[in-house]
Amino acid sequence: MKSKKFRPDWTEKAPAAGTYRSIFKYGDPDSFKHPSDAWYKMIKQDFHLGDEHFLSKGKEGLEQVSLNRSVSLKPHQVEAIKAIVGKENVALDDFSRVQYASGKTTEEMLELRHGIIREVADAVVHPRDKHDVQKLMEYCDKELIPVTVFSGGSSVNFGCRPVKGGISLVMSTHMNKLLEVNELNQTARVQPGMFGPSYEDVLNKAPELFKTKYRYTCGHFPQSFEYSTVGGWIVTLGSGQASTYYGDAYDIVFSQEYVTPAGTFKTLDYPATATGPKVNDIMKGSEGAFGILVEVTMKVFRYMPENRERFSFMYPTWEAAVNASREIMQSEFGKPAIYRISDPEETDRGLKLYGVPDIVDKFLSLKGFKSMKRCLSLGNVEGERDYTRLVAQKIKTVARKHGAISLGSYAARKWEHTRYKEPYMREDLGDYGILIDTLEAAVTWDNLHRLHEGVRAYIKSRPDTMCLTHASHFYPQGTNLYFIFIAHMDDPEEFRKFQRGIIDSIQKHGGSLSHHHGVGRMISPWMETHLGKEQMAVLRSLKKHFDPHGIMNPGGQLGLD
Amino acid sequence: MKSKKFRPDWTEKAPAAGTYRSIFKYGDPDSFKHPSDAWYKMIKQDFHLGDEHFLSKGKEGLEQVSLNRSVSLKPHQVEAIKAIVGKENVALDDFSRVQYASGKTTEEMLELRHGIIREVADAVVHPRDKHDVQKLMEYCDKELIPVTVFSGGSSVNFGCRPVKGGISLVMSTHMNKLLEVNELNQTARVQPGMFGPSYEDVLNKAPELFKTKYRYTCGHFPQSFEYSTVGGWIVTLGSGQASTYYGDAYDIVFSQEYVTPAGTFKTLDYPATATGPKVNDIMKGSEGAFGILVEVTMKVFRYMPENRERFSFMYPTWEAAVNASREIMQSEFGKPAIYRISDPEETDRGLKLYGVPDIVDKFLSLKGFKSMKRCLSLGNVEGERDYTRLVAQKIKTVARKHGAISLGSYAARKWEHTRYKEPYMREDLGDYGILIDTLEAAVTWDNLHRLHEGVRAYIKSRPDTMCLTHASHFYPQGTNLYFIFIAHMDDPEEFRKFQRGIIDSIQKHGGSLSHHHGVGRMISPWMETHLGKEQMAVLRSLKKHFDPHGIMNPGGQLGLD
Repeated sequence: MKSKKFRPDWTEKAPAAGTYRSIFKYGDPDSFKHPSDAWYKMIKQDFHLGDEHFLSKGKEGLEQVSLNRSVSLKPHQVEAIKAIVGKENVALDDFSRVQYASGKTTEEMLELRHGIIREVADAVVHPRDKHDVQKLMEYCDKELIPVTVFSGGSSVNFGCRPVKGGISLVMSTHMNKLLEVNELNQTARVQPGMFGPSYEDVLNKAPELFKTKYRYTCGHFPQSFEYSTVGGWIVTLGSGQASTYYGDAYDIVFSQEYVTPAGTFKTLDYPATATGPKVNDIMKGSEGAFGILVEVTMKVFRYMPENRERFSFMYPTWEAAVNASREIMQSEFGKPAIYRISDPEETDRGLKLYGVPDIVDKFLSLKGFKSMKRCLSLGNVEGERDYTRLVAQKIKTVARKHGAISLGSYAARKWEHTRYKEPYMREDLGDYGILIDTLEAAVTWDNLHRLHEGVRAYIKSRPDTMCLTHASHFYPQGTNLYFIFIAHMDDPEEFRKFQRGIIDSIQKHGGSLSHHHGVGRMISPWMETHLGKEQMAVLRSLKKHFDPHGIMNPGGQLGLD
Repeated sequence: MKSKKFRPDWTEKAPAAGTYRSIFKYGDPDSFKHPSDAWYKMIKQDFHLGDEHFLSKGKEGLEQVSLNRSVSLKPHQVEAIKAIVGKENVALDDFSRVQYASGKTTEEMLELRHGIIREVADAVVHPRDKHDVQKLMEYCDKELIPVTVFSGGSSVNFGCRPVKGGISLVMSTHMNKLLEVNELNQTARVQPGMFGPSYEDVLNKAPELFKTKYRYTCGHFPQSFEYSTVGGWIVTLGSGQASTYYGDAYDIVFSQEYVTPAGTFKTLDYPATATGPKVNDIMKGSEGAFGILVEVTMKVFRYMPENRERFSFMYPTWEAAVNASREIMQSEFGKPAIYRISDPEETDRGLKLYGVPDIVDKFLSLKGFKSMKRCLSLGNVEGERDYTRLVAQKIKTVARKHGAISLGSYAARKWEHTRYKEPYMREDLGDYGILIDTLEAAVTWDNLHRLHEGVRAYIKSRPDTMCLTHASHFYPQGTNLYFIFIAHMDDPEEFRKFQRGIIDSIQKHGGSLSHHHGVGRMISPWMETHLGKEQMAVLRSLKKHFDPHGIMNPGGQLGLD
């Protein structure tokens, strides 16, 4: 006899307009992904909670945003800004000021639930085009008005927080179009505020829309794809889930146009050049601290989804998975597009969460793929048909050599299907005081195990804390490690301390401070120790050159000021 | 009855020590490559010269170098420098000062034949290690002594010319060792003055020398390979003949250590990182104007020469060759390592020079591959066996689609065999007043024909001037054009004017100022027009940061001062 199954009352309603929740909710207001029954069961077990814990929610952030802070800009300054962009493109209301000051960190979500508001801009400005941006830049530089750039708003490091007030410049409202597809050069000229899905959609439909011969893909699919923009990818040094083949955001930029206090310029359109240090590269990763990206020409790629070869494998151990991956990346037979390996904890929890039947678990164990040892790997190969077949077959050979068994394409398909949806669970769990957050680092092969063990040990040293780790961006010289930690914790101060401890641990164990989240203001305090004072001095000298009056994204961005 | 064939008395003897010729002679002093009979015949025909022209040589530069310029360094400065590096590592003699002030431009060769000496350093210094370099840097910065870096000396743009005197710092004398092979990370730590062949040799023999599992290759084979160094490749943004697969020098650097007036630093070892603008990339292409590269960690690649697949094709037209190449580079089936296409003039002259029999010429013409229309393409594929086979087969399919016929692997093998030897002919031809020089540019596909036609038209506007053009470094977005011009001309002033006109023409027709030769002081006057004043201001601000007293390679390098 089965008792009636209890399910928490997961929120199924878009947050009301003007509420804190409408700011921190991830993604589409009307879209939800609730924890599965398996998830719910796991959370209760791990955190020693009963159904009774889930009878009532904690702070949901359902209140109307109330700021009660005056606008420091002088009335004539507001008028001047309205004269530049049109009055309909300037907002001074509380909600706009808070909305465009917030990114998507777990810390901000937690604070907004508690009604805590950090620094906001005086005014939110939506430029219509690059000429607006140029005029605004000249005016703000003259008047010493701080400018903080906001585009998709998916920042996870306070990169869009207007620490010194001034204006929030929102790039995604109007400057979000694809301007040109150049099929000869295989490039696309794009405005920086264009969101991932519309960009990809236009490229996929290029034959219909631009009369091209082929369909194209942008090749860049970060987990934030739906809520991040092309410009944001570049200035924060993002990396997509298919980066192992297509490259990181850094690699797929062809040329850029910037508006800075020191002038406006467009880098040249060349596939390579030997004319000194490349300003085109210097600007990438500048996170709005040097100037504003107003137009970009991106490399694009032939879109041939029909040729995709998906694979998944189970390895007996993490060491086997790492060794096989290294061999795959260092062999010279081409590269997979998506390629991931999950560590034992992520693998075991993943099997549970995806509802893999007990019989499969037993079969795996019998075959020597033991719980908390075995590691899942999945991915795909993109390109021309012969090529995808060859690379998939070579990967299989290497995997088997390292003791893996093939699980076919099922796990890869399943993962692809939900890959943008995972962040949606944050709100549901947060309603009951359960936090999910992530930190990540790049690492060379020879330091991978030290970093993995060291950071994991720190996270697991906190009682009842889950730590799921995977590597998802691969290079011949190394990879990244992506740490997901889940805890029953709802005090912002406790969270902050614990999370900063993870960054410390990454630093201490030789990981880079970030592989693809960027720096913002969250990890900037570690920058000088990490890069060394000589290299920080180089970045600061560039800051001084581009922004002599310190108006661009001031207040700690990148650790520059 | 055949008359006895006349052959010019090509020089077959190493230049005497201390002569001008010993400075400008290319490559190994005891190595020669004389123009073939076919070359000789072609030269006579094109330049309307008879055998009698070749009875006596012009200026050969056989005189002993005589400088007669005092050393501007004060005696106590010379003593201080000797105290740092050891007195055996400081030279003040005329010959050393001229030798280490000279690169390999045609202009320098011509001038040295005439005994014309441009600026030289006061002293030539050979640091033993990076600590020497650091001490020298501190001393020279304090004493305001200019420092010009010299490594392989294969510069073709006066990049090593000590325009402001001071010291020539020679990196290749002592700092020329491979320090470590890290097989896990697939990297090699190298001193910057290591020459191509020794570097490649050690990597090829890594199993014997470093107990590695695999053999490795550096993947970088510029024509200057034998006389250029790893450090030079990086700071001048070189590109090797297999760059289409392995990448340009820019791409194969993992991390670097620099000594600058603003301090010494080593960039971090990460396969990627999102910690702001990358200082590791900012330093590449700095041509000694920011500081001195003292150690570098390079990416290396599995060495599997046994799997190489060579190919060559004849295309009916230049347009067909370009279109096929574009399709090959934009398809997603992997990339060839070496890939080249020759324009009609280079193809026709090449067929003659390689002694292709008349019957082959007739056969090609009959098949529609007409003289001064047809274009040769050749290359190879490197990597694992299945991969090289697949890519070679795909290339063949595309080539045929564009009307090409396969010539098998013969032309590719022939080219590989002589690829480092071509520059040796310069001295022989120069002895009789015939000049060979090259200029090059990067270009997008959509501007390739305009650049090719425009620059060619300028070169051909001079009567009796050969112009051979090829593209040899390919990217999905474009390629490079490499212009070789050959003329009967021995007045340095006439040469200078004509050659500068070609740079003008490249600029005017939208080519980059350089694809892989770098800037130096030869094309620097065009830099500001090319990049724009805003981007030049960025480079100048970096110069000011690294080198506030202007001691690093001063006097026009990169157009910075």
